[in-house]
Order: sequence, then C-alpha cells, then structure tokens
Amino acid sequence: MTAADNNPLIDRRQAMRGAAMAGAGAMFLSPAMALSASSDMSAIRRAAEAGRQASIQRIQDWIKLPSIAAEDRNMPEGADYMASLAQDAGFQHVEIVPTDGYPGVFATLDAGAPRTLGIYFMYDVKQFDPAEWSSPPLAGAIVDRPGFGKAIMGRGAVNQKGPEATFLAALHAIRAAGRKLPVNIVLIAEGEEEIGSPHFKQVATKPNVLAALKKCEGIFIPASWQDKNGNVSVNLGSKGIVELELVASGEKWGRGPKGDIHSSLKAMVDSPTWRLVQALQTLVTPDGNTPAIDGWFENVRPLTAREKALIAETARNSDEAQRKAILGVETWIDDLPFEQALQRLAQEPTVNIEGLVAGYTGPGGKTILPGAATAKIDLRLVPNQTRAEAETKLRAHLDARGFPDVEVNVSGGYDPTETDENSRLIRTELATYERAGITATLNPRLAGSWPGATFTAPPVSIPAGHFGMGHGAGAHAPDEYYVVESTNAKVAGLVDATMGYADFLYQLAAIR
Amino acid sequence: MTAADNNPLIDRRQAMRGAAMAGAGAMFLSPAMALSASSDMSAIRRAAEAGRQASIQRIQDWIKLPSIAAEDRNMPEGADYMASLAQDAGFQHVEIVPTDGYPGVFATLDAGAPRTLGIYFMYDVKQFDPAEWSSPPLAGAIVDRPGFGKAIMGRGAVNQKGPEATFLAALHAIRAAGRKLPVNIVLIAEGEEEIGSPHFKQVATKPNVLAALKKCEGIFIPASWQDKNGNVSVNLGSKGIVELELVASGEKWGRGPKGDIHSSLKAMVDSPTWRLVQALQTLVTPDGNTPAIDGWFENVRPLTAREKALIAETARNSDEAQRKAILGVETWIDDLPFEQALQRLAQEPTVNIEGLVAGYTGPGGKTILPGAATAKIDLRLVPNQTRAEAETKLRAHLDARGFPDVEVNVSGGYDPTETDENSRLIRTELATYERAGITATLNPRLAGSWPGATFTAPPVSIPAGHFGMGHGAGAHAPDEYYVVESTNAKVAGLVDATMGYADFLYQLAAIR
Repeated sequence: MTAADNNPLIDRRQAMRGAAMAGAGAMFLSPAMALSASSDMSAIRRAAEAGRQASIQRIQDWIKLPSIAAEDRNMPEGADYMASLAQDAGFQHVEIVPTDGYPGVFATLDAGAPRTLGIYFMYDVKQFDPAEWSSPPLAGAIVDRPGFGKAIMGRGAVNQKGPEATFLAALHAIRAAGRKLPVNIVLIAEGEEEIGSPHFKQVATKPNVLAALKKCEGIFIPASWQDKNGNVSVNLGSKGIVELELVASGEKWGRGPKGDIHSSLKAMVDSPTWRLVQALQTLVTPDGNTPAIDGWFENVRPLTAREKALIAETARNSDEAQRKAILGVETWIDDLPFEQALQRLAQEPTVNIEGLVAGYTGPGGKTILPGAATAKIDLRLVPNQTRAEAETKLRAHLDARGFPDVEVNVSGGYDPTETDENSRLIRTELATYERAGITATLNPRLAGSWPGATFTAPPVSIPAGHFGMGHGAGAHAPDEYYVVESTNAKVAGLVDATMGYADFLYQLAAIR
Repeated sequence: MTAADNNPLIDRRQAMRGAAMAGAGAMFLSPAMALSASSDMSAIRRAAEAGRQASIQRIQDWIKLPSIAAEDRNMPEGADYMASLAQDAGFQHVEIVPTDGYPGVFATLDAGAPRTLGIYFMYDVKQFDPAEWSSPPLAGAIVDRPGFGKAIMGRGAVNQKGPEATFLAALHAIRAAGRKLPVNIVLIAEGEEEIGSPHFKQVATKPNVLAALKKCEGIFIPASWQDKNGNVSVNLGSKGIVELELVASGEKWGRGPKGDIHSSLKAMVDSPTWRLVQALQTLVTPDGNTPAIDGWFENVRPLTAREKALIAETARNSDEAQRKAILGVETWIDDLPFEQALQRLAQEPTVNIEGLVAGYTGPGGKTILPGAATAKIDLRLVPNQTRAEAETKLRAHLDARGFPDVEVNVSGGYDPTETDENSRLIRTELATYERAGITATLNPRLAGSWPGATFTAPPVSIPAGHFGMGHGAGAHAPDEYYVVESTNAKVAGLVDATMGYADFLYQLAAIR
C-alpha cells in the first residue's frame, strides 16, 4: 500500500506529471562535493562506484522473483531471498518469522555501536499485467527516462526493491571500503504490504524482534521520491486508513433477489442497489465532504499551531495553479484558499468511494435488477482515531440507521502515525538532505497511509518515517521504473542515493 | 430489446428455470388433431412437413449472417437478406427503407383478401462472445435440449430469427399447398431493435408504409414463448421504458477531479461519485421503491376493474411459492400478498438501477478518488406516461435539485402500449391458441417493453402484440436455442408452430 498510497498530491500513475508540481528547488549539490569532506565518505564512494554494476544486478535479480501475497505467488521463496540479501549485506542474525499469513524476515547487524537504526522492508510487489508494459515487467531492462536518465524498468523497481537494494548497497560499500558501520542495524521485512500488512504486527511483536526494535533511534523505509527539481518531503506522520467494501445483497437483506433478475420486476421486488445508495448517503454530509458516521470526530485531535505553521510554509512555497492543473481540479473543497485546503488535507478524516460495482457494468445497458451492489470505500483517519474504533463506529452507525444487513468487509488498514520532529530520526533526515543540497519540506502529516503505526504505536513506540534520495515512479502501474544513472543534476542516481544512505548512518551516529 | 425485455417474471438467461414457473397447464392437443378439420389445413400441413428441412436450413443460413447495429456489423447485408427472405416467401413488393440510422425493410403480399395482417420483424441480433458458447454461435448446430427436444443453437435462434422464419415457413407452406393466402400481409422490419429502435418510427411513418400499416387489423411479432407446460400469455399492452446513464463527473461539474486522483486528496477535493450518490437518492423514496421525480405520477392511469380482474385470475392460477423460489425472492415489495404484488407489477412506474460503475471495479481496493461515476438506469413507464415526458421530467427534477451538471444520457426507449382485448388481433390470438389446445392467459400489461408503441400510438394506431407457438430460450445469453423437433407433447415443434401461424391467418380471415 505504501508506494501507491504515500503521495498525497498526485496519482502515482502520473508521477511524471506529478514531478512537475514541486516549487522551485535548491540546486542539487553533487554528493561527491558535499560528502567528500570525510575520508570515510571518499573511500565509501569509491567502493559504491566499484560496486555499481553489482548493485544494478542485485535489483534486476530481485525483480525476477515477484512475491505477490494476493496471488500466493513465490511467498516462501521471497522470504528466503530477502533473508539471503540480508546475509549478503552483512547481517549476522537473519531469521524467517512465521505468521498466521506469510512470513516476515528479521535481521540484525551488530556493529558494537552505541546507536541502532531500524529499517523496514517489504519483499512483496503489486500484481501486474505484462500486456500493459512496454518492457517485460520481470526483465528489469535498462531504459531511458527523458528528464531523469537511465532506469531499471520492472515490477517493484521503485516500490520498493530499488530503494531497498540501494540501502543494502550502502552496507556493501561501507564493508568494501573497510569501514565499520557507525550504527547497528535492525531490519524487519514483510511480504504482505500490498495486501495491507494484516500480520505484520505479529512479526514486530515477536519478543526478540520487539526487543531489537525498541533499541532503535527510529525506523525508516527506503524511498526514492525526489521530484525533478530534486526536492523531497520529510513526513512527521501519516493518516490511517481502513479499506473496505460495503455490500448490500438480497441474500443478506432477505429482501430483493438473491441473483440478478429482469429489471421489469422492480415494480414488485426490492432493490439491493437502491439499499446500498441509501446506506451510503448516510455516511457523509450532503456535499459528500464530511463524514457523518456517528461519533466519528470524538477522538480527532485538531492541528497544533506548529503543524499549521508548517502547512502555511508549504502553501507559500507551492505553485497552487500548477497543482490544480496537474490534478485536473478547478477548485478546492468549499472553495477554500490553498492554505486552508492543505490544512484540511492534513486535518480531516474522510470517507471516500474508490469504486462502485453493481449489476451490469459493460457498455450500454442491460435490463436487470442486480442481486447485490458493492461500494469500495477508504476511510482516512487522523490522530487520535484508530482503525479499530473506525470499524466499530461504522458498523454501529449502519446498524442504528437500519442497515444491519449491509456488510462491512474490511480488507486492510493502518492506524494514523505521528513522529516527533525533534527525534534523532527526523533531525538526521533533515541534516543528511541538507548536506546533499536537497530542499526538504517538513510535512506535518502525510495524507496517505503506511504501516508505520506498527512502529510508532505501543508496544514498539519508536519514531518512523521515509528516507532516501533518487527517483522512480509507476508504483502499482505499468512501466514502473527506478533511476540508476541520473542525467538530472538535481536528482540522485544509484551511487549518489547509495551515498545518501551511507551519510545518513554517519549522521545518525554523530547527531546530538 | 424485445426478447430480453419481454418476460416480466424471469431473467431470460434462466429460461430453463423460468419454464418451470407456470401453473398447471392444459394438455397440449396436437395441432394435427385440432386443425385437420379443414382440408386446407391438411394440405398445408403436408407441405409444411415436406418443407421442414428447408425451413430449418433457412433459420441456420440466416443465423450465419449476424447483423449487429451496435457493432456496425453486416447491416446493409442484413437488410438485403431480410428483403430476399420476403421475396422468397411471396411478397410482391419489397423495399429497403433508408433511415438516419440503419435501413428498415417494408414488404407487402397482396392476396386480394378483405383483411390485412401486419407482421413486425427485426433482422438484427444481440452481441455475443463465442468463448461463452457450448456450440459456435453462428453454426446453428442441432443440439438436444432435455425436456424439449432437438433445437437449433445460435445467436438469434429465438430472438427472433427462428420464430420469424417459422412465420415465413407458413407462407411457403400455404403456397406449396396451392392455397391462396386468406389475408394480405404487410411486413415491416428493422435492424436496430437491439439498440432500442432509434429510427424505427422513420420506417413506420414513411407515407406508403404508414398507409399500408393503417389498413392492418393489427400487427404482431412472431414469438415462441411456450413454457414446458405449453402455456402462453396474450399481452394487452406493455410498459414503456427509457434506458439511460446518469453521469457525474469533475469535467461537467467544475468541482472534483477531471480524472482519477489519489484517494487521500478527498480531504481537499470534491468527489463526483458522492455527487452521483446524492443525485440518485433524490429519484426514489427512501425504500427505493417509488419514483420521487417531480410530477412523475401526473399522467399515470390507474388500473381498470377489468385489468385488476385479469391480474386476480393470474394470481389464482399461479404458484407463488415457485415463482419466489425461481426468482430468489423471499418477499414482495412492502410484504404485499401475491395478487397485490402482481397489480403493482402492472401498475407502477419504476426507477431501477441496472448497474453502477465508478472508479476501481476489480478485486480488492485501489486508493483513488474517481473523476466520474455512472449509474445505468431504466425507467419503466405506464399509460399514459410517455418517453418524452419522462426524459423532460427527469432533467427538470435534477436541475431543480441542484444537479444541472449530472448528465442524463438516454440510449433508447419505448412508450407504453395498449391493445384492446376486443380487437380482431387479440381475439384471433385467443381463438388460435384455443384451437391448438393451448392455455392462454390474458395479461393486461407486460411489465417488459417492446417497440409496439410505434404501432399502437398515432399516427399508425393499430392493435399490436406477440403471437406464436413453440419454444426457445437464451435470448441475449450464450447457448440461445429454438426448438425444431419437440419431444414435449405440450410444446410445438417447428411444423406445429408453422401450422399455428397458418391457422392464425385463416382465423383472422374468418373471425367476425
């Protein structure tokens, strides 16, 4: 869910367009210049450059083994492969962690350092249809991406095998340069991210894993989300999400038909589709913009003054007209000014319809009265709402409104997350970006969602976020790619992104 | 639209199950016994039997040429073929009638008789996917249909090439027997029935066609809807229909996105899908059962005492529990008793949702905010509503409710029809069925719809209905078939159905 779900302002299918959204960014200073002050860094860069081809091969090989939980495809194989990647990168303890679903992987690299960094990986990828791709999705071919450079094209290239393998490349380079890691590393990986991480908490709370995680200064997922101006966001949290289907059916209702019947019978038979429509419209205000589920706002924490200030800064530094153009939007909700619209983006829980499916969905019409109707819904949650609370309240609301038969089939979800901007994790992210000459915007709350709450909530309770340089796009879409040789001076290629991770480790060790 | 839309109590995909719905039927007396009183009939039957193989071949050959208006497939060829079929059957004047769409065919067979019968044909068929068929849909193979006998399987077999060619077989047989036709015949055919007959009125009101139609005692479409007990309905009219799509989009609304965007943006961007839901729920009462469109009932004529009496008789003669079981329905609307539910079926206009399509419709979820949402709707109309009135009132209602941007895209429709049970057409139908020992139920109003209003309304203004013996099923579905050799003593095969048409012509000539 992460990669498709993390960018609040663009559909990642349109990442090339999305990249144009950023405001003016600072000139990207080559990491070669920014980092060469340290002799460690010079040696590591030489090793990263020497290992560049091996690093590309590592990504390509990994892409050849797609693990897809929704299709029960290569799941044990994917966990084993993840484990071997960790071993090769120098982790001394590597462990497959069984769950009630597909296994996770836990690994530790003890450098004898005072501080420890957590790293979160997913070894699974989104489903794909080879027919939609311009290059075979498992081939990992090197292709040209105008404006960015040479990229690996394949399923998982950016979501997340490319960035993850780049982090591993940093560990390889530090070892190859004969340097000792400045921090210890705890790696936790799952194979069910794309189906909503239903068993990830089992991995994270296994006693030895939990104990290791709790020692971490924080944990991040490697990410490569530089836009074409080189800019990145540092997220201080994210909304939660519940994805579900609301289903009205004659079967459950006891009224209407159990299957599709001829539409003329509407005069004497109830319609489950109309029932769904009636149930749906109780969930939001008449403008469709504010949840109207009973008690929904009870635990909603308003934005702090600091969060509002950060949003105001983002609004000032963004090109509103360009964002509207890219999104195909003429006006924000309630005709709000941009700053207030961005506040709403961070502040408000939402009830969104992702899809409607009932009866005949092909071209033209077909005279049927459908036996069932489905709305695909996502509920976005803000602190201090929880996923469990949301599910309970939605069910209670429908029951109270006379829709006990309308099914709520939850497929996955995450709690909201929050990470203190004064944590060493966030301060290290900002420091590392600054050393690389990258403009980082502090985002108080990602409107998208990710499994970070597993880390920020008890019992783990550590800072969690996203970090990384470089660029890729097409997560969940055809022609997914990850740039390995950048022709854009503001955007890191594979070696510069590798050095970004290496520098992060040294900064985390050094920061006060 | 006819065949898929004519049977109010079953989905024609389930016609085998539907056939079991009828109440106890009278024993089917062989037409050979019922009709042999007349020496004309004996000679014609011998000719029909001699021509049996040619009649089967005529149906199979016609099936090989599928004309599909929605696909612009074989349309001029289909009209030419229809014209040649008419010529072969003895029509002296045969004319292709151009329209703004695809052409119709008009033909007359002048027997110098005092009375004239109108016949309505469609030469087009519904789209099909060969992969879904157990026998190639254009092959017209002879297959076994247990409980019925040997049948031709192919697209158009029952809807309507089989029954139509059987009517032509009657004309061939009468000529081969050396008999003069007892009535003159006016044939009018169209190639756009399956897309809602958008240009059929142009055919029917061409001056020479109109003049010929106005001379007819009435007009029928050949039909083969005997159930497995041999029973048929005689319809005294039908509801009208408007098929349309309601579309809400960011494009038209000027709010929300023009395409799909990331669902987290719901917090700052309006949703066209929620707008569709809100517009939809204004169209009906909260139970989804009664139209709430402004002024909808202004011109609705209540059922007459006679219509209610006919419905009461149908209710008495039907097995309610069996009908519910076949439809997968536990309770009728408002928990009505069966007779009142059947009254409602005939009486009430409806707003039905055939389908909902918005955003992501595949398995699982996808975090998008869709740029547009569509509801496929059919409006069933009763006398004295009209299609034009319905379209105007729906638009006005949406405008008045603040939804001027929600598009109403009408794809087709028909006005309601009414035919006097005392007309010669209906009396002849009843007499012919009775002579064949077939139980015919008078149905005051078909809840389905067909293009009959073109005939019953001005300027044509003649009785119109359905007539025919025999059996077939699977209209609009895979494995469509038409029985040619019946093993069910209560159901006519090809020759008996041919004789049914021949006898109709003699009865129409003779009835007072």
